[in-house]
Parts: sequence; C-alpha cells; structure tokens
Amino acid sequence: MLNKHHPTAGRRARTPDSDARAQLLDAAIALLAERGIANTTVAQIAAAGRVTSAMVHYWFDTRERLLDAVVEERLAPLFHTIWDPVDVERGEPLELVRGIVGRMFDVTARMPWLPSLWLREIINEGGLLRERALRHIPLQKVAGFGQNIARGQSRGEVNPQLEPLLVFNSILALVMLPQATAKIWRRINPTLTLDRSALERHVTALLMHGMAGGAAAASSRQHGKSRSTS
Amino acid sequence: MLNKHHPTAGRRARTPDSDARAQLLDAAIALLAERGIANTTVAQIAAAGRVTSAMVHYWFDTRERLLDAVVEERLAPLFHTIWDPVDVERGEPLELVRGIVGRMFDVTARMPWLPSLWLREIINEGGLLRERALRHIPLQKVAGFGQNIARGQSRGEVNPQLEPLLVFNSILALVMLPQATAKIWRRINPTLTLDRSALERHVTALLMHGMAGGAAAASSRQHGKSRSTS
Repeated sequence: MLNKHHPTAGRRARTPDSDARAQLLDAAIALLAERGIANTTVAQIAAAGRVTSAMVHYWFDTRERLLDAVVEERLAPLFHTIWDPVDVERGEPLELVRGIVGRMFDVTARMPWLPSLWLREIINEGGLLRERALRHIPLQKVAGFGQNIARGQSRGEVNPQLEPLLVFNSILALVMLPQATAKIWRRINPTLTLDRSALERHVTALLMHGMAGGAAAASSRQHGKSRSTS
Repeated sequence: MLNKHHPTAGRRARTPDSDARAQLLDAAIALLAERGIANTTVAQIAAAGRVTSAMVHYWFDTRERLLDAVVEERLAPLFHTIWDPVDVERGEPLELVRGIVGRMFDVTARMPWLPSLWLREIINEGGLLRERALRHIPLQKVAGFGQNIARGQSRGEVNPQLEPLLVFNSILALVMLPQATAKIWRRINPTLTLDRSALERHVTALLMHGMAGGAAAASSRQHGKSRSTS
C-alpha cells in the first residue's frame, strides 16, 4: 500500500495532483488541530480530505512523514512570515513588536487551526510536533530581537523594567493563548468578544502602554517636548 | 481492594493518617503534572508516595475520585487564594491587577506543579481536569473584575483601548505560560532568566506601563498635575 517512490505515472493519473495533495494536507492539519494528533487516524484524515487511505499513504508515505509535511510545508512558512520582515539591526523596538503582533494576527486569521495546534502539539509537554517545530524557530532572529529591545532600553525608548528575552514570550502568550482557549473563555463568559479586531486592539494596547497607559500615553504625547530623558 | 466506606477503624490504624493522605496527594499531583494524567498509573502514584496501590485505593477509592481530590483539595483553594481578596466593588483597577499578579506568583512559587498542570490538563483541549476545574472558577468575581476595569476606563484611569473582559486572560497568559513552558524557552535560549523575581518584575511592568511605559510613566508622574482628563 505504501508507495515510497511516488512514481510519476501515479501522480500524473490525477490532475492537478499537487493541488489535491495540498488540499489533503490542509484537511489533515485542521483535523489534527481539532482532535489532537494522538486521537486521529490516517483513515479519519483520508475521510476529511475525501480521498482513500491509500492516497494519504501515496502522498505522505507514513504518518510520521505526514507530520513532517505539516511542519515543513505549513508551520515553518508561518514562522518565516512572522520573522523574515524583522530587521533586528535597524528596526525600532516598538515598531518591531507592532509588526510581529500584526503578522501573528494575520497568520492566525488565515490559519485558524494554528493556536490550537500550537497549544496542544508544540508547547504542551509531549506535544507530537514539538521537536519538529523547534527546529524551525529562527533562533538568531529571536536572540537579535531581544538584543534590539535591550538597546531600546539603554536609549530610554523601552520600559527598563522589562526582561528583553521575555518580550517575545509575552507577545506569543497574549496573541495565541486567548485564541487557543477561546472555547473555555466563551463558556466562562458568553458575552466575551474574541474577534480579531477586538483582540488585536487589546493586545497591542497592553503591549505598548499597559493598563495605566491611556492617560499616560496622552500625557507623554502632549508633553513630549518637555519630557526628561531619564 | 477498594474501600468505599473508609471505615474509621482502618484510618486509625495509621497515625497521623490525614498527613499521610495529604502527602500522597501532593506526590500524586507532582507526578500527574510531570507525566500527564493519561500517562500515569495508580501504581506509579503509589510508588511516588512510597505507599502501596491498596493505600491509594483506600484513601481515594478510584482514580476519578483521586482527580476530584486534586481539584477540590488542591486547585480550588488556590483559586480562592487568588480571588478572595479581590474587592471588585471598591478596589482600584491597577491595585487589583497588582494583587492578582502577586498572588499568582506566590501560588506558583509554593506549587511549582501548577503551571504545567494548568497547561496540560485544564486549558489543553481534552485536559482531564478541565471540567472539574471550571466548576471552581469564581465566575462572579471574574465578571466583577471586568466591570471594575471598565469603570476604571470610564474614569480615565485605565487604558481605554483594552477589552475589560480580556484583562484576566492576559494576566493568566503572561504569568502562567512562561512558567508552564520554561523547558522549551531554556532550550531556545539557555541564558534566559525565568526566576520568579525577574518574571514578576517583567510581567508587572508590562501590565502596568507596557513597552513604551518607562519614559511615558516618568513623564506622566512629572506632568501629572497638568495632565488633561481626556
């Protein structure tokens, strides 16, 4: 049943084959995010993608290779989307944060399965995508981002009480956790608004100016020219 | 083997029985947080607590009753510790937030298993403590806290861009997630400081004044009297 060599004869029998494979991968990832990888069989993935199990094996060989494809073809490009535009040498810290937050919301709007998959299969202990996903984290960029924040602190532009290396962790927590746990929050409070615009406004406002920030921000704009540099 | 009636004759055979039961419960919860509930057997819990499986059954009857005890005797009191001092009618919003954050760090310092268990078994889809834990969330307090924040916004004391009902979610994300995922973060960056004082300073600073907050906060204090009320 497994077809290790993906003979082109077989591929050309379906047209367009790569679209069908991509559609199956999308159906698979949505199902894996919803049910959890450990609870999802190849037969269920095939059914979700409206193909036979044999086709799943034909395109992805084994279940492990399917998980490789999820990370390499779907998750890793998202990491690039978020991090590639970050210029850790020349960017202004606050603008870098706004950019990262905006792109994370773009990505989760396009890929609504991402927050659940992130919670369940990457950060959760025993998550089945953790090792694969960690290999694609742009470590240099993340470290450079922390250094950029630290330089912003030394110039007096960034709150000196923050830990530069924890800022990305905080962004990730604020953007991803409410989306990953939306079901629970709606049960606790059915009136809770978790649409993108409300969540993005809230997260950006908190990251930029904090709870005390409304009046303080207005004041600092108003008195910007007389502000001390301390 | 199961002893549904916990006859007092049996209990009195060990002295002090309630301490031994409490110690077993503590050993059980640490193991459940580390391994995950689905991956932990009663025999392993007994071994961790240095008692026989029969003793586990004697004290907790079934595995499900043991999980009830974890939530009712260990998690629910923590929820009370965090929320009971919150006066949603008279408290100042920023002071309420400082209080909640401080008590959450107190609780996680005393109960280092909490962040992992929270991530894995409560907020994670399919977490085995979710339904039990949700029953103990003080919904009135949480809702009242949101209303308190909203009143603070209408008085101009709280950043008007925030969603009042999302503030507690953000606090929880900022305090719990870095502790629950400390292993991953240390792998990504071995120099990362995740001790309580650094994390608490970072989270409090971010929640109060945000990234731009250092200079802006100084400025608002300096120009407090000339600040417009808009």
